[in-house]
Amino acid sequence: MKLKIAIFISGRGSNLENIIHAIKNNKLKNIEIVCVFSNKSNAYGLEIAKLANIPTILLESGHFGEERKKYEAEVLKLLIPFSPDLICLAGFMRVLTSDFISQFPDKIINIHPSILPSFKGVDGQKQAYDYGVKITGCTTHYVVPEIDAGKIIAQASITTENCDDEKKLSAKILKAEHYLYLYTLEKLSGGDFESLKEEGWKERILIN
Amino acid sequence: MKLKIAIFISGRGSNLENIIHAIKNNKLKNIEIVCVFSNKSNAYGLEIAKLANIPTILLESGHFGEERKKYEAEVLKLLIPFSPDLICLAGFMRVLTSDFISQFPDKIINIHPSILPSFKGVDGQKQAYDYGVKITGCTTHYVVPEIDAGKIIAQASITTENCDDEKKLSAKILKAEHYLYLYTLEKLSGGDFESLKEEGWKERILIN
Repeated sequence: MKLKIAIFISGRGSNLENIIHAIKNNKLKNIEIVCVFSNKSNAYGLEIAKLANIPTILLESGHFGEERKKYEAEVLKLLIPFSPDLICLAGFMRVLTSDFISQFPDKIINIHPSILPSFKGVDGQKQAYDYGVKITGCTTHYVVPEIDAGKIIAQASITTENCDDEKKLSAKILKAEHYLYLYTLEKLSGGDFESLKEEGWKERILIN
Repeated sequence: MKLKIAIFISGRGSNLENIIHAIKNNKLKNIEIVCVFSNKSNAYGLEIAKLANIPTILLESGHFGEERKKYEAEVLKLLIPFSPDLICLAGFMRVLTSDFISQFPDKIINIHPSILPSFKGVDGQKQAYDYGVKITGCTTHYVVPEIDAGKIIAQASITTENCDDEKKLSAKILKAEHYLYLYTLEKLSGGDFESLKEEGWKERILIN
């Protein structure tokens, strides 16, 4: 039985693309993407999903303004038919309420671009760059109502070597994110990590 | 010209011992320990220093109670004759006042057992263990009046793999500390890091 995941995005969907790519290449053998959900109609990730013949759901959050619960009730209605085992936030830029989260206890995960608990909230990469850390990275964790505070699943660290601007640092963290998300899905689906060993990223990285 | 360092301790002096050992083995070629200072008479590190023929200074802080400035004035008097270029705190468990720090601008460094800015203050190892992080490590930084907040010099990260209790995690971080302190001293004294490559520690570590 494969683990059925729904991926939530708001933008380019680079982690989504990486997961699709991995599955196509016979990695993540225990994972099936049942749908991709976006709260933004211009999210490029929707195109990526369509090209891969993955069902997409679009529900613009903008129209709902502050009516978060009403919005989430609609999301739930659209999502339930796909009966996902796990909801994977991947650049999903909307905070979920505890009402929504309680519908999927320990079944919503997120990736954050820092070694939590450092640099919670928006722009974890910029926060790290501005602080002047020598090591940073990314974290996958369960989603709880408090932002970036849920139980940690896995983390990856990288050095800030050769990152003389914030853009370079963000790009390096993003590569680590790609690797960490695959690692996390292998971990949660009982995978053997074997296929990840072929991953081409040559930068030094520490993952656990 | 070697960089003349004074090492401040309060206890067993495991980092001190490691630095002495490195120098004896022709590592840290640009470093000379001019004295070891302790604020505790029972600090085992004092014995280590004496065995290595390094001058020691002992000034019990306990007798001074809350008279921190008076205590520090005495420390300063004893320290000045050794004219250190750098003061290295290594398990020194007393907070220095801004008066003392301002006497040595950017010349006091400390090692902290976490990847700062996570887990500042006491028991960084326990804080990390209790939080459930998958990656932690240690940081060397310049000392400023605000605790563990000064500019970062270098960091090392390790995984929490096989650390099923806090003690194992602390031991693993301590090994990383030993390596990071040598790395930091090489960095600050213009060393070539060559000798560090032989370091025997086999655990995976990321350093920068």
